[in-house]
Amino acid sequence: MEVRIESHGRKAVWFSVPLPICQFSFLSAQLLTWNLATDCSARLAGINVGAPARPLPSADFGLIGLAVMGQNLILNVADHGFTVCAYNRTTSKVDRFLENEAKGKSIVGAHSIEEFCAKLKRPRRIMLLVMAGKPVDQFIESLLPHLEEGDIIIDGGNSHFPDSNRRTKYLQEKGIRFVGSGVSGGEEGARYGPSLMPGGNEEAWPYIKDIFQSIAAKSDGEACCDWVGDEGAGHFVKMVHNGIEYGDMQLICEAYDILKRGLGLKGKEIADVFAQWNKGVLDSFLIEITRDILYYNDEDGTPLVEKILDKAGQKGTGKWTAVNALDLGMPVTLIGEAVFSRCLSAIKDERIRASGLLSGPTPEFDGDKQAFIDDLEQALYASKIISYAQGFMLIQEAAREYGWKLNKPSIALMWRGGCIIRSVFLKDITNAYRNNPDLENLLFDDFFNKAIHNAQKGWRNVVSKGALWGIPTPAFSTALSFFDGYRTRDLPANLLQAQRDYFGAHTFRIKPEHASETYPEGKDIHVNWTGRGGNVSASTYIV
Amino acid sequence: MEVRIESHGRKAVWFSVPLPICQFSFLSAQLLTWNLATDCSARLAGINVGAPARPLPSADFGLIGLAVMGQNLILNVADHGFTVCAYNRTTSKVDRFLENEAKGKSIVGAHSIEEFCAKLKRPRRIMLLVMAGKPVDQFIESLLPHLEEGDIIIDGGNSHFPDSNRRTKYLQEKGIRFVGSGVSGGEEGARYGPSLMPGGNEEAWPYIKDIFQSIAAKSDGEACCDWVGDEGAGHFVKMVHNGIEYGDMQLICEAYDILKRGLGLKGKEIADVFAQWNKGVLDSFLIEITRDILYYNDEDGTPLVEKILDKAGQKGTGKWTAVNALDLGMPVTLIGEAVFSRCLSAIKDERIRASGLLSGPTPEFDGDKQAFIDDLEQALYASKIISYAQGFMLIQEAAREYGWKLNKPSIALMWRGGCIIRSVFLKDITNAYRNNPDLENLLFDDFFNKAIHNAQKGWRNVVSKGALWGIPTPAFSTALSFFDGYRTRDLPANLLQAQRDYFGAHTFRIKPEHASETYPEGKDIHVNWTGRGGNVSASTYIV
Repeated sequence: MEVRIESHGRKAVWFSVPLPICQFSFLSAQLLTWNLATDCSARLAGINVGAPARPLPSADFGLIGLAVMGQNLILNVADHGFTVCAYNRTTSKVDRFLENEAKGKSIVGAHSIEEFCAKLKRPRRIMLLVMAGKPVDQFIESLLPHLEEGDIIIDGGNSHFPDSNRRTKYLQEKGIRFVGSGVSGGEEGARYGPSLMPGGNEEAWPYIKDIFQSIAAKSDGEACCDWVGDEGAGHFVKMVHNGIEYGDMQLICEAYDILKRGLGLKGKEIADVFAQWNKGVLDSFLIEITRDILYYNDEDGTPLVEKILDKAGQKGTGKWTAVNALDLGMPVTLIGEAVFSRCLSAIKDERIRASGLLSGPTPEFDGDKQAFIDDLEQALYASKIISYAQGFMLIQEAAREYGWKLNKPSIALMWRGGCIIRSVFLKDITNAYRNNPDLENLLFDDFFNKAIHNAQKGWRNVVSKGALWGIPTPAFSTALSFFDGYRTRDLPANLLQAQRDYFGAHTFRIKPEHASETYPEGKDIHVNWTGRGGNVSASTYIV
Repeated sequence: MEVRIESHGRKAVWFSVPLPICQFSFLSAQLLTWNLATDCSARLAGINVGAPARPLPSADFGLIGLAVMGQNLILNVADHGFTVCAYNRTTSKVDRFLENEAKGKSIVGAHSIEEFCAKLKRPRRIMLLVMAGKPVDQFIESLLPHLEEGDIIIDGGNSHFPDSNRRTKYLQEKGIRFVGSGVSGGEEGARYGPSLMPGGNEEAWPYIKDIFQSIAAKSDGEACCDWVGDEGAGHFVKMVHNGIEYGDMQLICEAYDILKRGLGLKGKEIADVFAQWNKGVLDSFLIEITRDILYYNDEDGTPLVEKILDKAGQKGTGKWTAVNALDLGMPVTLIGEAVFSRCLSAIKDERIRASGLLSGPTPEFDGDKQAFIDDLEQALYASKIISYAQGFMLIQEAAREYGWKLNKPSIALMWRGGCIIRSVFLKDITNAYRNNPDLENLLFDDFFNKAIHNAQKGWRNVVSKGALWGIPTPAFSTALSFFDGYRTRDLPANLLQAQRDYFGAHTFRIKPEHASETYPEGKDIHVNWTGRGGNVSASTYIV
């Protein structure tokens, strides 16, 4: 559909507005008041609209919070033909933004919440990009008096999903549609195409789908944005994304450490390895920037990265993922280790003291370096497969636990582009879930099954060498232990259950293949392992 | 001190009451109304007490909750010369208990809270052994109308420490002294000497010290009970104890799995190994019961343990420890892996399907079996040292975070006897903290420093072999990775910080030894790694 835009003081221009069918009725009504910016109005050619008493709402989209992410997201939305109204609590930021980055674009500003809401077309589409926590609730409260039924509030911050659950319900009662949307991709992503993971009140989706899918990253022509699911599902999936990001980064760090301390490679040699890896199965944004970082030399000609303090923070969504995994009883071990690795990095002063007191072996390598580098590539790849398999196990369990309907293929699709963990690899995951949306586990998919079997030998070699060399590989190791545990029919937890019954009369169950009259299947059984103890546990009994 | 007890209808008996000096003034006052049971009164010989209008309070100690633990604890208290009043919501349990296990002992019963409180001497010492959570609060509320200022409520359940923080404050405002006490040792421990870890309102300690230290387990003549610290400190230390218990059990399971699947040992052979280990550095309750369990044959002459279903639960305090570690940012990785291992064990059906789809190597061993068993012993020992070091790191951080004063030597002492993790090993930990109460890390103690260095070679061999054999060693591996990370001065987190700055302008700091004018020490630095991006990150800047 072509729309003619009449712009005061500028040449009239024609441009195409993307109009998905489901959007048509809404947009055709809205087009009567279509505006490009405060000082210019866009009308359907030939339709005469009378001058309003007060300025008609002009903005298609409103955004609150002008930090880097907010600014860039506004510029992105404006680039796609929408008028955006910008607001920030410290209003000088609005002016500075309008005078600089926003200049000449379809961006208007507001200096109060009231003005901001007045400038938005109905239903209002308002995105908050403010600090997670209280600020979100405060802005919701200050918006409410100025909103009408059906208006939409989108929280694009890093909110914890239980907050989004709560806000969806709270606002639904007030007739306001709430969307909690994961936004990933950092500054660059926000500006040129983020990954967007919206969830919440699904009634909002038809009204924001157009904008969201327009501004989102594209991967093979598909937008890296789709409706995720109910309530906090969008923020949940974003949380797991961040957890996986923690994991991917930790895996890369371990590989870098092994290349450096295990094989004794120097700056550019390490960078070359990552450059090479970025052309294979590991092709991804994080491997690419690792390559760039490793090539980046300081003024003195040595890699800057080696001068950076090895202390990382971990107070965010990575931790939430690990805590949620513990809450839901899902063994998301790789993210757990990645978070703990950051904790360990953080106590640098203690590590310095420890390094003087605790010694270990000196790595020695006299084999085929390239062969070992290939093993390392496979170790990284296999560990990554495990991490994503664990992440999807968690998402699956959350959907069960919280009663959300989730579209797994679309989740992998949303992560394919725009976000920090974007990779060629996610195309294979998308395919896996498209081939079988009910896939029980990523490792059951033919492609990944084959991939992990091919990777095994190298992976085991790397973990084994790490242990012998004294180079920590918490993420590689936990991934391998998970793989070996997951594919084990009979784990040693039988002994653990016996121990619990021994000291606490906690009872155990019998393996079906060993069921008997004395030990029937499916019953809680207690055995008096010692012959001692009170009446309560004096004999073998079945609870 | 000898006290003569006059018992109606029974022979007069003399017995010794333990009277620590600090307790004397309190007890001498109480002795005027000393009673042995509802139907008999005990008086200091020669003192004439007039007959009361209503029966005088007779009980030194009250306990609510007559499940196994409660019953056994009452029997234990009674055995030590105290009169105990028993109450249970379902009062038929009181009658059954009085008619059976409690018969002929200094135990009285109550059929209402009012009666229960009336039977207790002042200040009342009331222990709750009910399910953690709401039941504790409900009993506190139902007790309050019947209590007087200075009375003591002790929660001996597995309460979460934040609840005990809250209850300490809440009851303090009402003039009631609250104690949250960890109780460990299972049924047997409760009956014959548990480990007790009381914390909360310290004013209560002089009034309960005598009873608590009398009934607690003894280790080398010292009671495994001492005051832990403020508010929920007792339950916190019990929580970490349970987490460590999870870890110890997981380590034993991994060793058992390696003996079975790695070395191909059979039932009695494995039991013999644990029997042997129980005479060395691993000498402990859990190794001992593992030996017993492995020797325990079913009617058909094969070990029962092999028939037990390998599915373990994990909804308790082990999980809390891992979550708390994440919250406090402490790398308590071994407990984390132990909890996740239970999660993995729990999805047995999925594992069965996975075992048909995912294959791995077949373990082959043709070396010196005894030498490898010795390596395994060292792997278990070293991993255990790491787990306890991590546990004490967490306790130390909690004390910092929550403002508790804790006595570290006494913590290790409390765990030396009575509880599930009791061991010879804990004597060495007690010594370490007695030698240096300000010890920064257990690994810095000479004894443990030497021990872990001696263990290293075997430990590395085991982890390496586990990886090559395809036998999961999540706890052994994470312990080794922690050790290698902890003793590493420069971890690869420098790369991680560079990545975070690259994609999110999160900034980094410079290593002090590389500080310069461009990159000053202690400043948050951002580098434009790509040369692209908006004004906000267009150049190298220092925040």
